[in-house]
Amino acid sequence: MYEVEVKVRADHDEVRARLADIDATRLRRVRQVDTYYDAPHRDFAETDEALRLRRETVTGVDGNADTETRIAYKGPLVEAESKTREEFETVVADGDAVEGLLDGLGFSPAATVEKDREFRSVDGYTVTLDDVAGVGEFVEVEREAIESNIESAREGAYAVLRELGLDPDDQIRTSYLGLLLRSQDMPNDSSG
Amino acid sequence: MYEVEVKVRADHDEVRARLADIDATRLRRVRQVDTYYDAPHRDFAETDEALRLRRETVTGVDGNADTETRIAYKGPLVEAESKTREEFETVVADGDAVEGLLDGLGFSPAATVEKDREFRSVDGYTVTLDDVAGVGEFVEVEREAIESNIESAREGAYAVLRELGLDPDDQIRTSYLGLLLRSQDMPNDSSG
Repeated sequence: MYEVEVKVRADHDEVRARLADIDATRLRRVRQVDTYYDAPHRDFAETDEALRLRRETVTGVDGNADTETRIAYKGPLVEAESKTREEFETVVADGDAVEGLLDGLGFSPAATVEKDREFRSVDGYTVTLDDVAGVGEFVEVEREAIESNIESAREGAYAVLRELGLDPDDQIRTSYLGLLLRSQDMPNDSSG
Repeated sequence: MYEVEVKVRADHDEVRARLADIDATRLRRVRQVDTYYDAPHRDFAETDEALRLRRETVTGVDGNADTETRIAYKGPLVEAESKTREEFETVVADGDAVEGLLDGLGFSPAATVEKDREFRSVDGYTVTLDDVAGVGEFVEVEREAIESNIESAREGAYAVLRELGLDPDDQIRTSYLGLLLRSQDMPNDSSG
């Protein structure tokens, strides 16, 4: 299975009005606070690795909220063509203990991405309204597809975006972490 | 609270016979498999740190067993007098993911300590029969005590050891990891 995903900048108030018009199904809301770490012995930007501590609160449509913390490691690309990389993730019972452990080992928090995500269901697609602190508001449209359906799934995602008053040509491929780091670099970037 | 703990080598068959004689209360049994890691950027033996992944199965007196995995970091001594050090430990949901994560970051398994522990209660003390793979059989007698009671608690622990046919003068202060590493070094240690 492949994940077909299209992301654009979007004004959430306008998108919510459209979603109300088409009576889109509300799903969960999620608050994610992701801390990315620097390593003491490697430059992760250079090795294309990532170490992330994620604190996530999921609020169901019934209003019940659950919080959990996960640690994830993403290794460098092992196969460039398919963008394959080793990934390991596990829930941890005590996020503060993991912070202490990483600090003791010499890993240091490099950047924190905070986002509030509202999930809706539209025509078989998951539509996510992402509000990313310091970066802005975005809409993601995604669904899984088998390889032979990737193209039609992408076309379908574009159609959903248009339905919501958005333009698929505005697609952004940079991660929220990348956008955050870029925005933080801006004030010092006199070269434009 | 202080932990008063005395450990000696002991033949478990003989100790079990004594425990049966005095009708000691059986508590849980625990199997612990501890993997200690080497760091890619520091020599933990030199810095007096430790990173340990513990897989533990606890079997209650009712026969029910529970398994959990914990990761722990022990920092260097920050205060030599009281042997104070920073310690962080948390339960993790997926031990294999933590192994993959540590491997990806360049940490490597250095030593594994496997032990089966049988807990009994004798006269307010916890008596533990430890069977440590590659190291041998041990008995630990311990209880908590406030500072002013440390001496009497230690005397009481010695009395329990004698009751079990053991000699407090045989006390061993080296950790099981230390004993394991020492036993593995032996064949190469021609200096005696």
